[in-house]
Amino acid sequence: MSQGKVLVLHGPNLNLLGTRQPEIYGYETLDDVNNALREKAVQADWDIDCLQSNHEGVLIDAIHAARLDGTGAIIINPAAYTHTSVAILDALNAFEGTVYEVHISNVHQRESFRHHSYVSLRANGVIAGLGTQGYQAALDALIKAKAASSR
Amino acid sequence: MSQGKVLVLHGPNLNLLGTRQPEIYGYETLDDVNNALREKAVQADWDIDCLQSNHEGVLIDAIHAARLDGTGAIIINPAAYTHTSVAILDALNAFEGTVYEVHISNVHQRESFRHHSYVSLRANGVIAGLGTQGYQAALDALIKAKAASSR
Amino acid sequence: MSQGKVLVLHGPNLNLLGTRQPEIYGYETLDDVNNALREKAVQADWDIDCLQSNHEGVLIDAIHAARLDGTGAIIINPAAYTHTSVAILDALNAFEGTVYEVHISNVHQRESFRHHSYVSLRANGVIAGLGTQGYQAALDALIKAKAASSR
Amino acid sequence: MSQGKVLVLHGPNLNLLGTRQPEIYGYETLDDVNNALREKAVQADWDIDCLQSNHEGVLIDAIHAARLDGTGAIIINPAAYTHTSVAILDALNAFEGTVYEVHISNVHQRESFRHHSYVSLRANGVIAGLGTQGYQAALDALIKAKAASSR
Amino acid sequence: MSQGKVLVLHGPNLNLLGTRQPEIYGYETLDDVNNALREKAVQADWDIDCLQSNHEGVLIDAIHAARLDGTGAIIINPAAYTHTSVAILDALNAFEGTVYEVHISNVHQRESFRHHSYVSLRANGVIAGLGTQGYQAALDALIKAKAASSR
Amino acid sequence: MSQGKVLVLHGPNLNLLGTRQPEIYGYETLDDVNNALREKAVQADWDIDCLQSNHEGVLIDAIHAARLDGTGAIIINPAAYTHTSVAILDALNAFEGTVYEVHISNVHQRESFRHHSYVSLRANGVIAGLGTQGYQAALDALIKAKAASSR
Amino acid sequence: MSQGKVLVLHGPNLNLLGTRQPEIYGYETLDDVNNALREKAVQADWDIDCLQSNHEGVLIDAIHAARLDGTGAIIINPAAYTHTSVAILDALNAFEGTVYEVHISNVHQRESFRHHSYVSLRANGVIAGLGTQGYQAALDALIKAKAASSR
Amino acid sequence: MSQGKVLVLHGPNLNLLGTRQPEIYGYETLDDVNNALREKAVQADWDIDCLQSNHEGVLIDAIHAARLDGTGAIIINPAAYTHTSVAILDALNAFEGTVYEVHISNVHQRESFRHHSYVSLRANGVIAGLGTQGYQAALDALIKAKAASSR
Amino acid sequence: MSQGKVLVLHGPNLNLLGTRQPEIYGYETLDDVNNALREKAVQADWDIDCLQSNHEGVLIDAIHAARLDGTGAIIINPAAYTHTSVAILDALNAFEGTVYEVHISNVHQRESFRHHSYVSLRANGVIAGLGTQGYQAALDALIKAKAASSR
Amino acid sequence: MSQGKVLVLHGPNLNLLGTRQPEIYGYETLDDVNNALREKAVQADWDIDCLQSNHEGVLIDAIHAARLDGTGAIIINPAAYTHTSVAILDALNAFEGTVYEVHISNVHQRESFRHHSYVSLRANGVIAGLGTQGYQAALDALIKAKAASSR
Amino acid sequence: MSQGKVLVLHGPNLNLLGTRQPEIYGYETLDDVNNALREKAVQADWDIDCLQSNHEGVLIDAIHAARLDGTGAIIINPAAYTHTSVAILDALNAFEGTVYEVHISNVHQRESFRHHSYVSLRANGVIAGLGTQGYQAALDALIKAKAASSR
Amino acid sequence: MSQGKVLVLHGPNLNLLGTRQPEIYGYETLDDVNNALREKAVQADWDIDCLQSNHEGVLIDAIHAARLDGTGAIIINPAAYTHTSVAILDALNAFEGTVYEVHISNVHQRESFRHHSYVSLRANGVIAGLGTQGYQAALDALIKAKAASSR
Repeated sequence: MSQGKVLVLHGPNLNLLGTRQPEIYGYETLDDVNNALREKAVQADWDIDCLQSNHEGVLIDAIHAARLDGTGAIIINPAAYTHTSVAILDALNAFEGTVYEVHISNVHQRESFRHHSYVSLRANGVIAGLGTQGYQAALDALIKAKAASSR
Repeated sequence: MSQGKVLVLHGPNLNLLGTRQPEIYGYETLDDVNNALREKAVQADWDIDCLQSNHEGVLIDAIHAARLDGTGAIIINPAAYTHTSVAILDALNAFEGTVYEVHISNVHQRESFRHHSYVSLRANGVIAGLGTQGYQAALDALIKAKAASSR
Repeated sequence: MSQGKVLVLHGPNLNLLGTRQPEIYGYETLDDVNNALREKAVQADWDIDCLQSNHEGVLIDAIHAARLDGTGAIIINPAAYTHTSVAILDALNAFEGTVYEVHISNVHQRESFRHHSYVSLRANGVIAGLGTQGYQAALDALIKAKAASSR
Repeated sequence: MSQGKVLVLHGPNLNLLGTRQPEIYGYETLDDVNNALREKAVQADWDIDCLQSNHEGVLIDAIHAARLDGTGAIIINPAAYTHTSVAILDALNAFEGTVYEVHISNVHQRESFRHHSYVSLRANGVIAGLGTQGYQAALDALIKAKAASSR
Repeated sequence: MSQGKVLVLHGPNLNLLGTRQPEIYGYETLDDVNNALREKAVQADWDIDCLQSNHEGVLIDAIHAARLDGTGAIIINPAAYTHTSVAILDALNAFEGTVYEVHISNVHQRESFRHHSYVSLRANGVIAGLGTQGYQAALDALIKAKAASSR
Repeated sequence: MSQGKVLVLHGPNLNLLGTRQPEIYGYETLDDVNNALREKAVQADWDIDCLQSNHEGVLIDAIHAARLDGTGAIIINPAAYTHTSVAILDALNAFEGTVYEVHISNVHQRESFRHHSYVSLRANGVIAGLGTQGYQAALDALIKAKAASSR
Repeated sequence: MSQGKVLVLHGPNLNLLGTRQPEIYGYETLDDVNNALREKAVQADWDIDCLQSNHEGVLIDAIHAARLDGTGAIIINPAAYTHTSVAILDALNAFEGTVYEVHISNVHQRESFRHHSYVSLRANGVIAGLGTQGYQAALDALIKAKAASSR
Repeated sequence: MSQGKVLVLHGPNLNLLGTRQPEIYGYETLDDVNNALREKAVQADWDIDCLQSNHEGVLIDAIHAARLDGTGAIIINPAAYTHTSVAILDALNAFEGTVYEVHISNVHQRESFRHHSYVSLRANGVIAGLGTQGYQAALDALIKAKAASSR
Repeated sequence: MSQGKVLVLHGPNLNLLGTRQPEIYGYETLDDVNNALREKAVQADWDIDCLQSNHEGVLIDAIHAARLDGTGAIIINPAAYTHTSVAILDALNAFEGTVYEVHISNVHQRESFRHHSYVSLRANGVIAGLGTQGYQAALDALIKAKAASSR
Repeated sequence: MSQGKVLVLHGPNLNLLGTRQPEIYGYETLDDVNNALREKAVQADWDIDCLQSNHEGVLIDAIHAARLDGTGAIIINPAAYTHTSVAILDALNAFEGTVYEVHISNVHQRESFRHHSYVSLRANGVIAGLGTQGYQAALDALIKAKAASSR
Repeated sequence: MSQGKVLVLHGPNLNLLGTRQPEIYGYETLDDVNNALREKAVQADWDIDCLQSNHEGVLIDAIHAARLDGTGAIIINPAAYTHTSVAILDALNAFEGTVYEVHISNVHQRESFRHHSYVSLRANGVIAGLGTQGYQAALDALIKAKAASSR
Repeated sequence: MSQGKVLVLHGPNLNLLGTRQPEIYGYETLDDVNNALREKAVQADWDIDCLQSNHEGVLIDAIHAARLDGTGAIIINPAAYTHTSVAILDALNAFEGTVYEVHISNVHQRESFRHHSYVSLRANGVIAGLGTQGYQAALDALIKAKAASSR
């Protein structure tokens, strides 16, 4: 029986992962990331959906859909929309499950406009700078929290 | 054979963990946190030291000591010193290993003076809002990164 | 004979109206709001179109279309795009009719980033905090202004 | 039987309405505005009082009096005191009924010091830029809200 | 023989004390506060005058009068005018006696615009958050300082 | 025949002129200042009224009255209200004659909150730091401008 | 043989060019602009693509596509997204060719929020205020730079 | 029987009291201050502890100890740490009794960095500018509040 | 016998006076201004020198020269250097006589960068917005002050 | 017959062009730049003058001279004075022809104090980051605009 | 006979000098620095004490001790505490001798939070960027000043 | 044989040294300062040039000349231009030798606009508050550094 359903959302430009500046971002593609997450989810009896879009509206629509289809948690890397999208914040505010925010790099060491996150105002947890491992850490935390609350 | 040595540093007031507002912070004490970390470290063949202090200078001294005793990584929850201590930042700048910064709560949802972290200017990764699970996630990341680089 | 045509635009997340936190936002859905507006419009011999989108670009396209199809006024609740969309402001700047900006809640009592509105730089009138009644007030004002200018 | 009592407060310089720059503000005087409001109030079985003053203290005294004489709502155009009077805000904070804030022009298109309103921190609703029609919209909203809550 | 004369000034909305939100501000009225101060003053052979006004100008006039009638100290709770009145500051600057500023609540824990006080630029001492006991503390300080300087 | 009528307005605390810190402000009282202005006005065939008030509302009322009684110019020393009164600015905005703003001291060398003047947004000319001679300079400028425009 | 390929991107509302306020923006439409650019490109043996969209995501997708189809340069007028889109900046950061940013008007003489450009953080060159001639200047610069580097 | 226990904490440099600039700070030493407080406490049947330290960590440790030894109130003059120590604020946040903050001078009349107090975000009351008498006023308030709540 | 010597300094671009935008600045040239000042000076037995320069250094040199040649007062219109020249401020700080600052227009109604004046930090008096009459007012003030102090 | 006259102004330090950091700025000297501009001007029948100065006043004098000698346009690279010279802005404000502002590098990618340009408040067009080709683009734009307006 | 006594204080992390990044900071250790200072002091007949601590409180205690043991001057490199310690500033304010502040690197070229120094508000002189030679320069200045004042 | 050549540059108003406020700046003139520097230079076999100017352009020209005549270091007291001259910064940026910035007084204790230095962004070292001895310290540092690098 499924322990729950999790939606993994990747924001703008993350479709380029692994194909650009591999010396910095590594050779792992977004498919690699998603496959690793799916594997971990399956082992823990979780359903998982993964979606990437460069369109703010598409991301919002997906969050809305998650409200209705029994999704219990969202792991989101809002990328550039982290810093500019009040609309995604509002969509997440309307979502009642757990939200984890993931950034591959340590945004605090980049330009100052990347230091502020609208999504952090809603996220239960925030993970930055662990590379693509950050997604795994978020999923781990989710699985453990569920297990703890089920006990 | 040891995979490496990790220092876990807890900043001011964290000695109170588990004894105050348990409805918020839970009933887990700092000893519980440290024991769980030690258990995970042992399983992964890592050496581990844990230290808490309310004294900025003691934390700095500990970071300096880690430079000399072969410590390869520091997991630090700087607590209130996150926002005020340039001296801890400078000590970490002089440490050449990996640094992970952990916050139990999501600091971005608290007073605005808690939104800025001097330590984030140095940390490789930052984890906030995962509760005491955040320390585990940091140690996991460390172990996996080591394993990956050893391959 | 039609007194004119009005476009009612609802920004991101407003499709959720009535289905979330009804103790705050009430049980009225966006369809209820639109139907009430259509009823009032019909009584006053006005044509009316209603559109909601989570996509900034769709809202801009709709404003452009209104320039060409004889629409004389726009009632817009830009929701989260109020605070972030210069593009919607520019689209409205290119529209020559009347523009009323409506917010269901009193945005001035929410987070500080909700206190600034790009749309207010163009809107003829701004109504906030009257609940869904704010749309009705905007339509009333429009009808009365038209009636007054026709006299 | 009276549905309730409403106090209409006009702040500094509004006594000049209709006598200055009629090409901008129109030829309607403050008496015209008040008479139209009284007419609407009578039709809806509401008691209404209207007061204008250039004196901050007189406006505060009037709000205090409204606390004691059964006034259920205040419609206030604080004019210049919008931006400078914490004292009026505090007086309104002590008033337990409904408060609507009205501005004849769209203050967001004027000097930046007119963009901030202390009164908006207390007002249930804010209406700006509808001309003197804004007062009517506020009274309409009040009457409808009362009717709805009486049902 | 009188030890001196003290003027107690209460700013806007303080006439409501004890009649509003008694669970917060208590059931003590401004008369109760003044009577308790008068009692303490009498015991210490001090003359005392108490005045409350919602009018900035009336408060200024009273400070001016105190310059001429031998008043040696002013205890002032400027309430909302604390944050907005340069004119009261200037009036106090022209008063040569001792000035104590009293706030019933701890203003530093309220909205940020209440954190700045023009009056503090002139006051000899500032007391906040002691409830109505703060007035007593100010009067005590005055009496003791006088006694000390008379010795 | 009168060349015109000028209103001289003195803001809060200026009634104390000459009675306080004479080593700084001199021994000249407000009556001395007004008498000197009256003398100069008489010689130039101008009517003159002088008013001082500590009440913002009284100053506004006086400006309104000047709109109706043929006053062609206002010389105003707004004192503390310079920095805080949008209401006086708005009253002056409704006055169609010439406005000169006078400050006895050089406000730019005092506290930073005295560096901004709302009245300067309306005044035709601003004179600061000339002592009470500043009023004379304003009246001179007025008389000369009138004479020039009458030629 | 083609000298290279250039993508011309027009941001939101630029589809209205020539149909709105021709006294300001002229009668030249976006098609006119694109045709003139195509003509110049052909003469210089460059391939050229032109795209306008009101959708941020569509612009990002187009930049991504350009990474893969051999496009060597992008000339972009980001219009309103200039000031708000970190996502377009990030997309351009992933593009390795030359980027020129064009604004038809001199944005520095418009509202202050138009003075900051995220795109300028990436653009090789920025041209503003030359009217639609700015696009031509950008293409000229591109052609000359290519010619110079081919020598 | 003891009415309760109070801890008096003096921050950095206060050990110098009375030995430096006596024309400003007076000839009273910290011992004098503490003795006077002890005398008053004894008379009111309160236990009292007094501690001064220049070490932030020592002050935090003392606050922690007070949580465990039945201390019901802390009177603290944080001196320079007022403005810089989030760690002391957090320690006080973990203390459940009453907290009074005392400053000997009126900090609002000193450098601007002394105008902000982290401790005020937690303190029940704040007293500044009463000289060493401020400690007495804090203890008085404590004794009276206890007496009132015991009635 | 000479009553003293005054230097009149005109900053950058003032050589254009009267030749540009006469509908705004009038037809009076800088020579006209200087001649009128010389005439008034002669009548009052003052020596006068007038200098205009577009070079900051030349203006500084002239102020230095005035320290040595017995000049007792400087009337300066620093024009654009008002807002940018700390060097002219320092030169005036080294001058021990009276300094009057004159601006032809009311700088407070122009761009915000024209609201700050370095020279005002030194000037005894500041006159703005009186047109070229402002120079006369400054000279009048000087003559009167000298006459008063000679009495 | 001459199509008009253009003045090319180079600000401080541009005399060093080509002699410093050629790997960045190239080997082209200011003479090379000017000669290329002269060549293009000759071909288009324009007169051209080129001037470089490190002296703000000399640049202002040159702009003034251009007002009188029939110069129709100025191409200016204000270099460091871009960010600090209100005086050059004012000189350009007095010039009635076309003004183009050129920067060799993309100033938006350098220190933040280089992001603001006083000259942009006056310039018709601004070109940055095209290298010395930017001057050519400005002259091209000028020639084309003249040709277009002559048609 | 001793010319006086000087205390050399080194702040946090300076104990690492010479052992970290020698390519930047050189191979000179703190002992080397202190020994060189002692040698120079001895030659000039000065007593000298050197202390390094990572503990803010220890540094404050040392400054206090210097007040009592006849120390006439302090040379302090506050390192990270430069930017955060009001307490050290206050301790130095209580020290009556000469204070020189030394920074090994030029702090103005590092992160912006290193540009502000609390200690500079008290220091007689500040030396930055001269490397460890800066300490020598401070001691030289001290010796020369003493010699000059002894003459 | 000459060890190298150093240029000493003094900015605006420094020609007044020793002739103004000697109780503050001392009786030493700029000639005295330069002569002492020349003496020290001669002893160390350095060539030295000294220049003072009130003209920004002259200082820039001198820095440019130093690039060509073999000057290896510049000691500059930019005085008021410290805070306003980007042009001098750019000139120094083009100079490849060592740059020391000297201020006679401690600028950090003066007006806030004197706390920022453009020159510090380039200077190798900065010395402030040592009086005219600061120039000597800079020259000492230069001589020692040369000697060290020659070894």
